[in-house]
Amino acid sequence: MKSLIPERTVERLSLYRRVLLNYQYLDHAYIYSHNLARFLKTNAATVRRDLMLIGVEGDVHKGYVINELVEKISAAIDPDNIEKVAFVGIGELGRAVHEYFNQNNTRLQVAATFRFGNQLINQVEDIPCYNMVNLPAVINRLGIKICVVAVTVEYAKEISAILAHSGVLGILNFSSALLQLPDHIYVENYDMITKLEKIAYFMNKPVK
Amino acid sequence: MKSLIPERTVERLSLYRRVLLNYQYLDHAYIYSHNLARFLKTNAATVRRDLMLIGVEGDVHKGYVINELVEKISAAIDPDNIEKVAFVGIGELGRAVHEYFNQNNTRLQVAATFRFGNQLINQVEDIPCYNMVNLPAVINRLGIKICVVAVTVEYAKEISAILAHSGVLGILNFSSALLQLPDHIYVENYDMITKLEKIAYFMNKPVK
Repeated sequence: MKSLIPERTVERLSLYRRVLLNYQYLDHAYIYSHNLARFLKTNAATVRRDLMLIGVEGDVHKGYVINELVEKISAAIDPDNIEKVAFVGIGELGRAVHEYFNQNNTRLQVAATFRFGNQLINQVEDIPCYNMVNLPAVINRLGIKICVVAVTVEYAKEISAILAHSGVLGILNFSSALLQLPDHIYVENYDMITKLEKIAYFMNKPVK
Repeated sequence: MKSLIPERTVERLSLYRRVLLNYQYLDHAYIYSHNLARFLKTNAATVRRDLMLIGVEGDVHKGYVINELVEKISAAIDPDNIEKVAFVGIGELGRAVHEYFNQNNTRLQVAATFRFGNQLINQVEDIPCYNMVNLPAVINRLGIKICVVAVTVEYAKEISAILAHSGVLGILNFSSALLQLPDHIYVENYDMITKLEKIAYFMNKPVK
């Protein structure tokens, strides 16, 4: 079994690949660790350490072969099979990632969005939009394992409990609710309130 | 001038306050640093250091006075005046934060949402929804300083340049575009693709 890559490294590997995909149609293209570092506002040593972790070493004089790097990153972080993602609450949020995943042949696929009954239907391109009452049935039927939960705080706990019971293994939580879920569910919280308060604090300050 | 609080500390202070607001109607209530730490999955030493930074010391035996702590955090991180926030692209995303800011008398206020002309209008409660073509005029007229940019990558650069020219000082960027804006604009990037790829990587792993 491969050893587990640290969380921050997985995030950076995902970002390296995003940058590198812009150059994927160049043949024999190389990139230096310090150039890759610049895109992520990190340093070259971090880049080299991250890439060493997934078994890639650059050429001292030319840097890393871009296409090889993309392949190695994909092999390291991508799931073995296609994983379906659903957006619960805010379908529009799915459009940007849907485009990215579609264009770049990654293993993630936006498979469904869900809304409450009295909301307008916003079909996101060709992704079907379901009523929230069908949540457990659809998640189950489509085999969806990852959900983005973007509902208000009063619904977030109940809905994520339903998701956990329906076979979901990973949740990106956009609500400000503290979810208490079984240990085998991987939860990543995004806290918009905190980020807005942080922006409000820093935006008038002289130093970043 | 007050010295600048580090970024992570500002984020944690915002989170401490969110936890503490649940207890604000208790009189003379105290909380220990290790209990506050538990909510944030951090440790008591970090909590104490953060609070010392904003000039709050707890009682060795009883901990921190909750209401006093809320006041001190607000004094430390809140802007001096009401700051208006706009949601550009995805108005529904504003609902949860709108509720929070409204209920808790913080200095942030969701003032507007913007949509593209051919999208359905989803008026978020009493927050007006404008067509994207009115972006510069409305931002200017309402004096909006903070914007959440949640449009697809092809529009994100242009729109954030317009925002920068319209007086916006802080941007929460939900697109995967790397924004290049003047130095005085504080940009916080949120990268959903990276978070989804991270979830996909960790959710089937034995250790978190």
